Amino acid sequence: MELHVKRDHSSSSHQYPNRARMLISCPDGPGIVAAVSHFLHQHGANIVQSDQYTMDPDGGMFFMRVEFDLPKLGERLEELRTQFSTVAEKFKMDWQIFQVSHKKRLAIFVSKEDHCLVELLWQWQAGDLDAEIALVVSNHTDMQSYVESFGIPFHHIPVTAETKAAAEQRQLEVIGGDIDVIILARYMQIISPSFIEHFRHKIINIHHSFLPAFVGGKPYAQAYQRGVKIIGATAHYVTEELDGGPIIEQDVQRVSHSDDVNELKRIGRTIERVVLARAVKWHIEDRILVHNNKTVVFN
Amino acid sequence: MELHVKRDHSSSSHQYPNRARMLISCPDGPGIVAAVSHFLHQHGANIVQSDQYTMDPDGGMFFMRVEFDLPKLGERLEELRTQFSTVAEKFKMDWQIFQVSHKKRLAIFVSKEDHCLVELLWQWQAGDLDAEIALVVSNHTDMQSYVESFGIPFHHIPVTAETKAAAEQRQLEVIGGDIDVIILARYMQIISPSFIEHFRHKIINIHHSFLPAFVGGKPYAQAYQRGVKIIGATAHYVTEELDGGPIIEQDVQRVSHSDDVNELKRIGRTIERVVLARAVKWHIEDRILVHNNKTVVFN
Amino acid sequence: MELHVKRDHSSSSHQYPNRARMLISCPDGPGIVAAVSHFLHQHGANIVQSDQYTMDPDGGMFFMRVEFDLPKLGERLEELRTQFSTVAEKFKMDWQIFQVSHKKRLAIFVSKEDHCLVELLWQWQAGDLDAEIALVVSNHTDMQSYVESFGIPFHHIPVTAETKAAAEQRQLEVIGGDIDVIILARYMQIISPSFIEHFRHKIINIHHSFLPAFVGGKPYAQAYQRGVKIIGATAHYVTEELDGGPIIEQDVQRVSHSDDVNELKRIGRTIERVVLARAVKWHIEDRILVHNNKTVVFN
Amino acid sequence: MELHVKRDHSSSSHQYPNRARMLISCPDGPGIVAAVSHFLHQHGANIVQSDQYTMDPDGGMFFMRVEFDLPKLGERLEELRTQFSTVAEKFKMDWQIFQVSHKKRLAIFVSKEDHCLVELLWQWQAGDLDAEIALVVSNHTDMQSYVESFGIPFHHIPVTAETKAAAEQRQLEVIGGDIDVIILARYMQIISPSFIEHFRHKIINIHHSFLPAFVGGKPYAQAYQRGVKIIGATAHYVTEELDGGPIIEQDVQRVSHSDDVNELKRIGRTIERVVLARAVKWHIEDRILVHNNKTVVFN
Repeated sequence: MELHVKRDHSSSSHQYPNRARMLISCPDGPGIVAAVSHFLHQHGANIVQSDQYTMDPDGGMFFMRVEFDLPKLGERLEELRTQFSTVAEKFKMDWQIFQVSHKKRLAIFVSKEDHCLVELLWQWQAGDLDAEIALVVSNHTDMQSYVESFGIPFHHIPVTAETKAAAEQRQLEVIGGDIDVIILARYMQIISPSFIEHFRHKIINIHHSFLPAFVGGKPYAQAYQRGVKIIGATAHYVTEELDGGPIIEQDVQRVSHSDDVNELKRIGRTIERVVLARAVKWHIEDRILVHNNKTVVFN
Repeated sequence: MELHVKRDHSSSSHQYPNRARMLISCPDGPGIVAAVSHFLHQHGANIVQSDQYTMDPDGGMFFMRVEFDLPKLGERLEELRTQFSTVAEKFKMDWQIFQVSHKKRLAIFVSKEDHCLVELLWQWQAGDLDAEIALVVSNHTDMQSYVESFGIPFHHIPVTAETKAAAEQRQLEVIGGDIDVIILARYMQIISPSFIEHFRHKIINIHHSFLPAFVGGKPYAQAYQRGVKIIGATAHYVTEELDGGPIIEQDVQRVSHSDDVNELKRIGRTIERVVLARAVKWHIEDRILVHNNKTVVFN
Repeated sequence: MELHVKRDHSSSSHQYPNRARMLISCPDGPGIVAAVSHFLHQHGANIVQSDQYTMDPDGGMFFMRVEFDLPKLGERLEELRTQFSTVAEKFKMDWQIFQVSHKKRLAIFVSKEDHCLVELLWQWQAGDLDAEIALVVSNHTDMQSYVESFGIPFHHIPVTAETKAAAEQRQLEVIGGDIDVIILARYMQIISPSFIEHFRHKIINIHHSFLPAFVGGKPYAQAYQRGVKIIGATAHYVTEELDGGPIIEQDVQRVSHSDDVNELKRIGRTIERVVLARAVKWHIEDRILVHNNKTVVFN
Repeated sequence: MELHVKRDHSSSSHQYPNRARMLISCPDGPGIVAAVSHFLHQHGANIVQSDQYTMDPDGGMFFMRVEFDLPKLGERLEELRTQFSTVAEKFKMDWQIFQVSHKKRLAIFVSKEDHCLVELLWQWQAGDLDAEIALVVSNHTDMQSYVESFGIPFHHIPVTAETKAAAEQRQLEVIGGDIDVIILARYMQIISPSFIEHFRHKIINIHHSFLPAFVGGKPYAQAYQRGVKIIGATAHYVTEELDGGPIIEQDVQRVSHSDDVNELKRIGRTIERVVLARAVKWHIEDRILVHNNKTVVFN
């Protein structure tokens, strides 16, 4: 049963069959932009949008995102990649070329809190998230019927301290080999280093943030007691350091002394869902490059 | 020489010779608002604005700010205070009554960075800070001629590790007995507990804030390396815990990967001056009550 | 069939069976707060929260919102209202007393765009909108199955130029006599003056807003062509002047030259749903007073 | 007498003697980026930062900003310009190359309100505005001693309906031929079309903005009466259409019913000075391209 009919909308992936995006990171040096744009021009591509950023002109890192149209992209992409590798080698580039019409495949992990999942599904259904939601994984069954009402496969994989390794193995199986990004939509389990290694800079997490940060449990209670005037949320790539990975997006909202702990949590939920959805959108649109523990977001 | 002529403006302290503000904190219980408003009505006062907040209805704390007009306030204020003490005793109130036409006297402490001082002087000159700037104290002479051009006394009191106690003694002397609030406008010296004790909840400090917070030195460099998307500032009352006092106000601004450390600092300065000026304004207008380590701000 | 099970949460309406809210507007004068708080104290009520605002101290209007607890409120409410009318008459008050445990009943009007409706239903389901959604009315059937999946009655009432009067008559019938507020969640029909008269300051609308405003059709296209840097949305009570009623809430988001018309619309939708939901929440919590064409919002 | 000593700071104009910025607008087409970057590479330039934007891929306009380093830029700039004109002609480019070390020369026009002027002078003095303030022009003398205390020439040129043409003639004389941008920092006179023609897209104005916009006089009074929840300011290039030129920057602040007209004006002033300073900074850094009535801001 699928209550929610995805409406017919013109998303970018449908509109632009011949569009591609190229992401490049490399040590800075003269001639990089010239080499890339010359290469693309030579192959008949038209650059639609291009962003560059150099972290430090002398001996720093260079980052580039190019969006281009190439007639018959589908047929010519492999050849293009092969030929570009010569350019890439010369400049010691880390690089990728993405076909815009090839939708990214998402896996969403969720526990019991639904606000982030609901937002992602709504944006997806509204055509604002140009991706395919391949499956939802949860250590609880609370969201099962809701997820399935969208026609999306739901996998219940319980996790306990004892079964953690087996549970992650099971997660890898249901995810399969063809997932572009995993979204922890309030998934309340710590991910093991070996799982993270499988999906380096491909797991996005969301968590609450405060000025100042509060260590220890019950951060909202602490924020209330300290009378903070602003609360926020941070979306980041998951690394081995808990909540310490590269920040993708942050946002905040003003609060006052009269907001009690429950109201702070309610506001926090609203920020979390907006911030996570933005981070996912930027990942899907190939707008994010990671260097060391920092993102470069071209948006 | 006074280059800067304070313009003739109608500030609230001039406009309302008969206006007073009352601040009350006490354990919550039935009949407080009734008792206060009955008392004021009985004495011929008209309540112009009134704010209350109860931290927790059962056994919590009650906070109240009342702004009222009383004919011939100047003559009758002492009597009013004497008579109110009976009401106050009954409810175990901490309370104060301020005459709006009595301008608060400010002492500003500054080191070398001028952005917060300049903002305060500009707002004061523009008539937006309804107070008297009694003096400026600095451990450097950089700002001397600028401050004196406003006709404001400037006291240069150097501070070293050895002379700290003597320097604070000297500060107390130049401040004298009639200062309502001390503003640390980027004053880069730690205040001793005994000095703080003299001015409990009367010293306002400003410092940068980040999500997440960064411990250790060079926070802007750390923020840059982590790629934060939002930076902010916090104004708070100074307590013995460094940067841990009750928060008065916070604000933030969005930044991006392309803002280098200097640009982050520049943006940080702009937020700091705005946030500090707001905190000072609220203190001057008797809008802040402190309970434990939290402020209640009626604005 | 009800897929969406409303979770068991402790909303304020359940938590506080003895809590009431009083809203008062009257010409300002001495003794109002004293009279109200004395009355409440005399009847055994404990004031939990109280806000006042005087538009202009001399001859202006006075507004007050009091939240109080009264033992056995349910049994005593009618008597309280009767007795308060004496106080009210003396001060020429417009006033109302609401029982918090009596949930407001909402009617939502929608056309084809679903973002505002989805947000309201999600917040309602999450327990963040403490009200009863009595019915949804639409001039289209697009949202029917979605609305009914929540167990909420859906009424399809088509509207054409010819059938408008009959359609509004039909709307009044399905709404019945027991609706507290009507929410136009992107309902793309103009409401007739006679319908508005039935629900004075009880119909909330949402629409896009820009700096500067653009007259004529296609405002997003105009905003794009003019290169605005900020777009927003306004929630307001519906009056006879189109989009000219008292403003309840507004918010904005930053945009740039690179956001095309579709992206501006997408961002606009996100602002609209947030702003409308806040306005509805404040209405439900009896936080809004209207005077002339202006709201006083105690939040 | 110069009270205000401009501190020794490392601004970008000092730091980068060999840096240049190129701005390009032209009809979109294949090979533009390739041609520009190839040209620069060929001449030994290293691209530090590059931004492009295409308004509409099919038959639309293309905009580009390139920041590059070229050894011995000072000696080679004229030759570079000459040689680039061949590239430019081929793509029908409007283009300019700016030497970063060549500071832009500003003329500031002011009337009686000082907040925008004070902000610009403060940011300039703090080293945050990397330009030369060549002169200040005013139709009043209020700001004369303040401006002269910075060592900046001040020209008092009164304007009446009768003397307007002569006054503008006098303004042109004192400005001379070497001014890069004129800033109307609350200059309350309408600029004539012929004066605007002299400085096409080189005059920046600031004015208040509201959602919705209010026509007629006393906009702050109207905003208060309508109870707006957000007020803002817009910086734009001056065109013949009053306040209708290309928008450079906008920002807003939240207000409430309790902010009276004076408070709204005070908040408005704070937004105006921040927004104007940002617009000036972006102009100085060659970040703004204008097409039709819209800006493309690369920041």
